[in-house]
Amino acid sequence: MSIHEECGVFGVYDPAGDCARTAYYGLYALQHRGQEACGIAAINDRELSFHKDLGLVGDVFSSSILDELGGTMAVGHVRYATTGGVRRENAQPLTLKYVKGTLALAHNGNLVNTPKLRTDFEYRGGIFQTTTDSEIIAYAIAQERLHCPSAEEAVARATRHLHGAFSLIVMSARKLIAARDPWGFRPLCMGRRGDAVVFASESCALGAVGAKFERELDPGEIVVVEEGEVRSLRDNCKGASSHMCIFEYIYFARPDSVLCGQSVHDARRLAGRFLAKEHPVEADVVIGVPDSGLDAAMGYAEESGIPYGVGLVKNRYIGRTFITPGQQSREQAVRIKLGPLKSCVEGRRVVMVDDSIVRGTTSRQIVNLLREAGAKEVHMRSSAPPFIAPCYFGTDIPDKEKLIACNYSPEEIRAMIGADSLGFLSLDALHQIAPDAACGFCDGCFTGKYPIDV
Amino acid sequence: MSIHEECGVFGVYDPAGDCARTAYYGLYALQHRGQEACGIAAINDRELSFHKDLGLVGDVFSSSILDELGGTMAVGHVRYATTGGVRRENAQPLTLKYVKGTLALAHNGNLVNTPKLRTDFEYRGGIFQTTTDSEIIAYAIAQERLHCPSAEEAVARATRHLHGAFSLIVMSARKLIAARDPWGFRPLCMGRRGDAVVFASESCALGAVGAKFERELDPGEIVVVEEGEVRSLRDNCKGASSHMCIFEYIYFARPDSVLCGQSVHDARRLAGRFLAKEHPVEADVVIGVPDSGLDAAMGYAEESGIPYGVGLVKNRYIGRTFITPGQQSREQAVRIKLGPLKSCVEGRRVVMVDDSIVRGTTSRQIVNLLREAGAKEVHMRSSAPPFIAPCYFGTDIPDKEKLIACNYSPEEIRAMIGADSLGFLSLDALHQIAPDAACGFCDGCFTGKYPIDV
Amino acid sequence: MSIHEECGVFGVYDPAGDCARTAYYGLYALQHRGQEACGIAAINDRELSFHKDLGLVGDVFSSSILDELGGTMAVGHVRYATTGGVRRENAQPLTLKYVKGTLALAHNGNLVNTPKLRTDFEYRGGIFQTTTDSEIIAYAIAQERLHCPSAEEAVARATRHLHGAFSLIVMSARKLIAARDPWGFRPLCMGRRGDAVVFASESCALGAVGAKFERELDPGEIVVVEEGEVRSLRDNCKGASSHMCIFEYIYFARPDSVLCGQSVHDARRLAGRFLAKEHPVEADVVIGVPDSGLDAAMGYAEESGIPYGVGLVKNRYIGRTFITPGQQSREQAVRIKLGPLKSCVEGRRVVMVDDSIVRGTTSRQIVNLLREAGAKEVHMRSSAPPFIAPCYFGTDIPDKEKLIACNYSPEEIRAMIGADSLGFLSLDALHQIAPDAACGFCDGCFTGKYPIDV
Amino acid sequence: MSIHEECGVFGVYDPAGDCARTAYYGLYALQHRGQEACGIAAINDRELSFHKDLGLVGDVFSSSILDELGGTMAVGHVRYATTGGVRRENAQPLTLKYVKGTLALAHNGNLVNTPKLRTDFEYRGGIFQTTTDSEIIAYAIAQERLHCPSAEEAVARATRHLHGAFSLIVMSARKLIAARDPWGFRPLCMGRRGDAVVFASESCALGAVGAKFERELDPGEIVVVEEGEVRSLRDNCKGASSHMCIFEYIYFARPDSVLCGQSVHDARRLAGRFLAKEHPVEADVVIGVPDSGLDAAMGYAEESGIPYGVGLVKNRYIGRTFITPGQQSREQAVRIKLGPLKSCVEGRRVVMVDDSIVRGTTSRQIVNLLREAGAKEVHMRSSAPPFIAPCYFGTDIPDKEKLIACNYSPEEIRAMIGADSLGFLSLDALHQIAPDAACGFCDGCFTGKYPIDV
Repeated sequence: MSIHEECGVFGVYDPAGDCARTAYYGLYALQHRGQEACGIAAINDRELSFHKDLGLVGDVFSSSILDELGGTMAVGHVRYATTGGVRRENAQPLTLKYVKGTLALAHNGNLVNTPKLRTDFEYRGGIFQTTTDSEIIAYAIAQERLHCPSAEEAVARATRHLHGAFSLIVMSARKLIAARDPWGFRPLCMGRRGDAVVFASESCALGAVGAKFERELDPGEIVVVEEGEVRSLRDNCKGASSHMCIFEYIYFARPDSVLCGQSVHDARRLAGRFLAKEHPVEADVVIGVPDSGLDAAMGYAEESGIPYGVGLVKNRYIGRTFITPGQQSREQAVRIKLGPLKSCVEGRRVVMVDDSIVRGTTSRQIVNLLREAGAKEVHMRSSAPPFIAPCYFGTDIPDKEKLIACNYSPEEIRAMIGADSLGFLSLDALHQIAPDAACGFCDGCFTGKYPIDV
Repeated sequence: MSIHEECGVFGVYDPAGDCARTAYYGLYALQHRGQEACGIAAINDRELSFHKDLGLVGDVFSSSILDELGGTMAVGHVRYATTGGVRRENAQPLTLKYVKGTLALAHNGNLVNTPKLRTDFEYRGGIFQTTTDSEIIAYAIAQERLHCPSAEEAVARATRHLHGAFSLIVMSARKLIAARDPWGFRPLCMGRRGDAVVFASESCALGAVGAKFERELDPGEIVVVEEGEVRSLRDNCKGASSHMCIFEYIYFARPDSVLCGQSVHDARRLAGRFLAKEHPVEADVVIGVPDSGLDAAMGYAEESGIPYGVGLVKNRYIGRTFITPGQQSREQAVRIKLGPLKSCVEGRRVVMVDDSIVRGTTSRQIVNLLREAGAKEVHMRSSAPPFIAPCYFGTDIPDKEKLIACNYSPEEIRAMIGADSLGFLSLDALHQIAPDAACGFCDGCFTGKYPIDV
Repeated sequence: MSIHEECGVFGVYDPAGDCARTAYYGLYALQHRGQEACGIAAINDRELSFHKDLGLVGDVFSSSILDELGGTMAVGHVRYATTGGVRRENAQPLTLKYVKGTLALAHNGNLVNTPKLRTDFEYRGGIFQTTTDSEIIAYAIAQERLHCPSAEEAVARATRHLHGAFSLIVMSARKLIAARDPWGFRPLCMGRRGDAVVFASESCALGAVGAKFERELDPGEIVVVEEGEVRSLRDNCKGASSHMCIFEYIYFARPDSVLCGQSVHDARRLAGRFLAKEHPVEADVVIGVPDSGLDAAMGYAEESGIPYGVGLVKNRYIGRTFITPGQQSREQAVRIKLGPLKSCVEGRRVVMVDDSIVRGTTSRQIVNLLREAGAKEVHMRSSAPPFIAPCYFGTDIPDKEKLIACNYSPEEIRAMIGADSLGFLSLDALHQIAPDAACGFCDGCFTGKYPIDV
Repeated sequence: MSIHEECGVFGVYDPAGDCARTAYYGLYALQHRGQEACGIAAINDRELSFHKDLGLVGDVFSSSILDELGGTMAVGHVRYATTGGVRRENAQPLTLKYVKGTLALAHNGNLVNTPKLRTDFEYRGGIFQTTTDSEIIAYAIAQERLHCPSAEEAVARATRHLHGAFSLIVMSARKLIAARDPWGFRPLCMGRRGDAVVFASESCALGAVGAKFERELDPGEIVVVEEGEVRSLRDNCKGASSHMCIFEYIYFARPDSVLCGQSVHDARRLAGRFLAKEHPVEADVVIGVPDSGLDAAMGYAEESGIPYGVGLVKNRYIGRTFITPGQQSREQAVRIKLGPLKSCVEGRRVVMVDDSIVRGTTSRQIVNLLREAGAKEVHMRSSAPPFIAPCYFGTDIPDKEKLIACNYSPEEIRAMIGADSLGFLSLDALHQIAPDAACGFCDGCFTGKYPIDV
């Protein structure tokens, strides 16, 4: 898979202190949402300090850095750069001084009216030192704050100018403010741990720091924590339909997270069940492509009655520094990442479930690997429908020319990847994989229809 | 789990060159056998060069280092230090000059007559710069070589002095020599890729480099590769019973490896089936502790008919640099590593399968985590029998005072970890988990009886 | 000595390209002006790229980084942080996007109306991500540019708002603009190398890149380089008296630099001559404290007729990572930095010349070192007058309570440092040490009288 | 200059502890003798620990590493690799276990019978893991120790087999042993600080740690420190003539060191005086090439009556990471390293004194630099005679084909470097520059005649 989530955010207020350390563990739980850069900003006695850099959470922070940061409040961020390259300058939280003091700002999502906003500020003499949306949001807040009685009100007014996806955590010297866009594109939840209040992109990060999940923020909602008191501002809640990214369930989120009331693992398993109904096949074993195809494979096996097997083992050590094989042997790259289980697939008709197909290259390599290991037939099932349009709201699903399903029919794709059969989850079924979710969905990458103009 | 394998070894002869790069990918596949240090030595035109350091394969090597190493032969090593601390000096392959030129040496295992051998060499004026067995083996080879017509003969004679576990790869300017101890404690296999010959601790490393598995080396066998020709020396093969470490199947090896003809994944699944027969229980779901408990959990589910579920999700990013929580919150460390899947366990009677119990601390934390997530009952099953004795052959299974099963009855252990029931795999069943294995086993850590005096 | 210069700047236009490499060598020559951080920004085909970090020039840049930067224009900066701590965020050049495209900005100096300017921008909704004056200057330029026909005109108008010291290099996609404050506090010169135009804080950096010194910029002057054409804007030249920092001659600048027509080495030697006239003493040898006291010591020797000797040898390897001895042995720190030459001082009456006295601690240690080495008498001479006031224009000469000469009489100071006699250069003489300089001077740190309100 | 010293050694016994820190400061003072690698080994309660790596002392050691090392004894080493490449494995002190426990070994010098010794040990089954002489010495000690009552006796016997230069410090669990070869090629002195005993390659390192110089070790002498008691073994003292490297005075040693009773600075100054007598010239100013030509230039000025001037300023920041200019601009490399002082040399006849001429390349560049700066005439004087033979005793003075004076006459060399005149110190004068030295000299690199067969 080559699709990436843009970011993960985390915020914590805890009068007992050591909030930077709490954020560290929270970011560890959100690391799958961004592996290029990370950062934590903390408040001690109304003073802001921060540390951020390129790299994984475990590499960027040391125990002594966390001790120095301390904090009765902290905000953290993990980043994957959809645009602008891998620049240290773009690491977040963005920290700044403005007319009312200091702010730290962490943002997950992507705005669609960035060029206009940026131009507006530039025409008022603004300067931009990063290529992040966060800097634009910061300007918007700073400008609104000039005419506003409070930081949260400035956030409320500023976010009204923002079109697109934002799950935002803003920290001033005294307040921790979480805000979610009115369409609810990206998840953002809150929890409690004693007197502490915690915000995170996914519930798995609440669990990691021992906090109890309380609820998802509503689309458009702003929650303010000030000296332990929690207030909700709902002026931006449109009350209308929400549009959470449905691909969060299929791929982005961690399986042990619960988004909008729906277990991610359960959604994936259900996707597998629907796949089995929509694309049944006679086979001997169902296997998943680790990690994100495993749950759907289990669902497929359950529904179809075909035994579930472990057909591919993932190398757990391949990280950012891995040297990919050269041109002549790129076909073999998949061998290093995935080891086939011969005793599982040899001489068998195999159903192979993966989360999606972007370019088809990886799928082809995996099919080939299974055949080499002796699979008699390989039937690929994708627990997502075909991608036919890019994403503008915080992921890097690419342009149409790079999406195989924009350019080839399913039968052509099947032939290209060398599978005996190929089935995608239908759009109908897609909308049924999250029955417990108390929200609507954005399925723009599968339909080309977006909740707002792009 | 806190048990570690000592090492992994890899060797390759390939007239096409670029052997260091092949070794790099091979070591990636063996990284689970040792994460403290690694190294590669290569031969180009009979000249030895090498690079080794503390750290993971991906951190120690860069593309330019691999290019410089090149090689028509290479030997690689990943190391976990059972003794002697984490010292850069102990990184392997050991490289040296002796009377006949250069040698590089990579060793997996542990000798039991180290003190005597060391003293012998010291009394002949030897000096030791590391604390590894490899240096002792090197001396043994160097001394034998004085009276031997060939390097392989020197290896053969030298290894006769060695009591204990060794899977060894030795590289001279012209020859690649693989040797396995006469008891067959540690695995060592060979494969081919065109004209290339490859040796590795586990078959998964053969697959990773595109080589075809040929066979396991026999206990006591020495295989020599010289200018493409492969010869086997079998003088040290005792012909008697062999004693492969049975815990390789349960925990150390990668599930996609085949050791002595037995699939590791299948052995684990079978262990789970036996567990279900020996320790049945009424329950609603069977879950495994990732990663090494998953396969056995599937087997338990199959045999028992209780549905298999995903109850715990492992954080994939926790590595060497992870800062563990302080004393007061150590109980919570497990939360960061494992996320419980509430929808899977809530209100249910859960069978939780793990590979083994050493001190019991982690098991207690996991049981507690599942209860917090709402499990009604937690029944723990260990796919290994209780540890009652240390290992002297290349793993760090500790002394008796640290082994919970040496000091408490199963019922006491159950109470300590807070489970509703607890079952260990029996010794009888243990010996049936690898029906395809063409070898005998060492089960010393479970019985206190070792194949050789310790 | 514990006085530091704030920064050094370098700019180059060269149609032949490779300007980042030229800047690299230029910054090497200016490294003495700032050792905490450095950076280079370059323009290729109107695109800006940059690299900056904490550390010395030699550590921050690699050959491949310089190759990537390339550049037909480049601006570079070395930084010592007088305020705001050692933060990577404050490394320069500052790079940004504004209404007319990209800018890179490097600044040496310190503004005295920073708080007011910052507040002004904040009250217009500005946000500040660093604690540098450069960011304020950037805002000023961006705001003026809204109503200005050209970048250089915006620089001209913006700098009219700036009170204090600035030697500034600004680079847009097409132009390289150098500006010096109307008081001429900090040096800034230009030179040529074929078609290339070079700007630098000191002439030594011109020589280092093979450029021929052309002239110092006039106070208030702005020089614009655009496609090889050089224009001078002189609207901000007040024509009135200039005020170059006179301490540049005594301590900051490199001896092989020529500032405003005056050789730094010659000025120091002359200071020594005046010292000999003002504070003669019977002695056997004159020695200098390396490095900045050596030239004055030679002058003292020449004027007095007392032989010049090498009495102290400096350890050339002590850098940023040096671990200073603990509290109990701090007195001995000086031993590691300076080695006394016994054969030079033993049994002799020694005149020891240093550049200045700030707190007196180091002087006391050096006097003590010389006595231990056998000096019969130690007569200290300072080639600067006593510091009696802080500097507000780009150096870290501290507040009055930390300046020994604010709190003690010369005789008290002599007793505190343990010298047999002590003499400071007079203010009168100070103003005669740079007879070739075509400028006036700021001597605020010696008089408390500054050219502008502070 | 491109001649390097091989190494520097340091040893300390101090019952008060913290010896690793003392060694750290001692190595800082010896850093000029080797900048490629360094290390410290320490004894605490008879246990050996150590730390060593490639890099400068300031980069390799941190305060926490020094704290961990502690030590009531320590031995340290700085290394420049004359042979065998820059390999981490070759960093010293060499640490090892042998029949009687642990040893640490630091060595300065070079043996000429290395091949024979190595072969001897190899034929007894020895293995070599480094390419250093130290490992051979260690073997020699280990073998002798088998038949010896004490470590010091083993050192005494072992060193009898060693032909060549060695200043050696050996540390066992209880004893600190310093040994100097019978020819006295390399310096080695001892000092005291209270109860502490200190050994060092040069006296400047004694001063750096606050120790009082006691004496140089005699050629062949072995000094043993055991629980504070100091004993001297003189069996290896030949009583015959000694042969200290005379180039130590001219170039290698630090000017504030005293070697064999002779101040290095004074020797250089005297060399300058002789140069003035042997090669007088009418000129306006005498300048030295920093740093090692400065002292001789002062001597030349004093003797000749021509004023001494500062004509070249050295960039103090150019270190190992410096990126040298590419091929086309190599001629300009010298500009970055040396800044000419125009006001000193312009329009003048300049005498330029440097320590020696190896290939002539650098001299040519400097002459050119001075002419560009306006020098009317440049008269070069070398304070060493012409090199006509390589050094086999611990420096990298190269083979004859690379020595300009082996292939060209002085007049040809003068023309090649572009000087108006050129004068070398004569061999006669060379032998008079160290009148206070209580030793004879090796001048093999100037005469081709060595004290022992090579």
